[in-house]
Amino acid sequence: MNSPSTRDAARCIQDCLTCFRTCLAAAMNFCLEAGGRHIAPVHIRLMTGCADVCRTTAAYLLSSTPFYEELCRACAAVCEACAADCDSVGKMDDCAEACRRCAESCRQMVAEEVGQTAEPMPA
Amino acid sequence: MNSPSTRDAARCIQDCLTCFRTCLAAAMNFCLEAGGRHIAPVHIRLMTGCADVCRTTAAYLLSSTPFYEELCRACAAVCEACAADCDSVGKMDDCAEACRRCAESCRQMVAEEVGQTAEPMPA
Amino acid sequence: MNSPSTRDAARCIQDCLTCFRTCLAAAMNFCLEAGGRHIAPVHIRLMTGCADVCRTTAAYLLSSTPFYEELCRACAAVCEACAADCDSVGKMDDCAEACRRCAESCRQMVAEEVGQTAEPMPA
Amino acid sequence: MNSPSTRDAARCIQDCLTCFRTCLAAAMNFCLEAGGRHIAPVHIRLMTGCADVCRTTAAYLLSSTPFYEELCRACAAVCEACAADCDSVGKMDDCAEACRRCAESCRQMVAEEVGQTAEPMPA
Repeated sequence: MNSPSTRDAARCIQDCLTCFRTCLAAAMNFCLEAGGRHIAPVHIRLMTGCADVCRTTAAYLLSSTPFYEELCRACAAVCEACAADCDSVGKMDDCAEACRRCAESCRQMVAEEVGQTAEPMPA
Repeated sequence: MNSPSTRDAARCIQDCLTCFRTCLAAAMNFCLEAGGRHIAPVHIRLMTGCADVCRTTAAYLLSSTPFYEELCRACAAVCEACAADCDSVGKMDDCAEACRRCAESCRQMVAEEVGQTAEPMPA
Repeated sequence: MNSPSTRDAARCIQDCLTCFRTCLAAAMNFCLEAGGRHIAPVHIRLMTGCADVCRTTAAYLLSSTPFYEELCRACAAVCEACAADCDSVGKMDDCAEACRRCAESCRQMVAEEVGQTAEPMPA
Repeated sequence: MNSPSTRDAARCIQDCLTCFRTCLAAAMNFCLEAGGRHIAPVHIRLMTGCADVCRTTAAYLLSSTPFYEELCRACAAVCEACAADCDSVGKMDDCAEACRRCAESCRQMVAEEVGQTAEPMPA
């Protein structure tokens, strides 16, 4: 089928917007002020990039824009990597959790599209 | 290799930003005022969604953010579809051309990553 | 004082993000499909512009970015105008309400800054 | 008058997009890697906030969205402050120049609106 269930899309929008605000606020407040590993260039880039793709994916879903699956796929990949980097950097559990939840919702949107239900897509 | 050539990235950033401004201006000025097929919901959604993913892809490349290939892949798919829709709606040649050029640059960024040169990626 | 109270900033972020999603979803789904006065160019532009400035204002507040008051001031003006246009177009009560609530929160952030409490700022 | 001259709007759009890409690329590449004063939280916030408001202002102008003057006013304030901070941090001449040029174009858009010509608006 080509459109996601309304309920799953609503959950994915919510998870994307929560991840957007969690990553952006953590990067620009906690990480910049903590210094050390928290300001490794790749960590800051992953955090702000994660916020950006989450925002865009939410906008696609909110707008019923075609190819939202492509955005969900990209969003899931970035969120998963951001969560892993947060674990590695440490003291970023809230952010890692928001990223993992968003990745899971995005994968669910992609899986649905091909008639499956909750199988994680291959990375 | 993991990073794109500087020259190809610069071209892709330029093509993404040109497509962003061309799609956004055309949708919000020409299309809204022309009416008819130009304001079919799917056409407006593709045009504004294309502007949005182009902007985000440009931001990833400008920021050296990891997973830029995922954004390039999504961007190429949306741009290609937007170009086809512009052809179908008519009188949107500039927009279709900006979309096709951007799709090609994005595909080039993805192809490079796996060590190929200019093969179009599979859809 | 130069920083807003944490509680007021949190409310403003929430109201901005709610207005972002309400305006974007209404413009791109209900309005585009309803046609008539709902697709008057100025109405669509106000709705999508309102979503955009709300998103940016939320990002400033989430990031503790200086000059957030300037964004709040611009956001309040756009939200107020969008609410009035929604009233005039009709059948857009949810959107008008989200815009008015966001305008009020943004004005509160500006008023605080100059040591006042809840006076609406001059237009 | 209520609409800017086409020529001035085109220049402002160009200057906003140049400032967007210059600030974003400098913050996320040069500054994050240089460390020291370049990663002071307020500097990174000004740089990324400047990129964000420039992007939004460009979108308003590209879309003929009402209240573009409010965005231009906010954009000019942020750009001016970002330029001053770049001067203070040092080795950021390209960024400071892009910010000053954008601030000037934005002020021009606001000045026009009230029938003046090139007077800088009061801060």
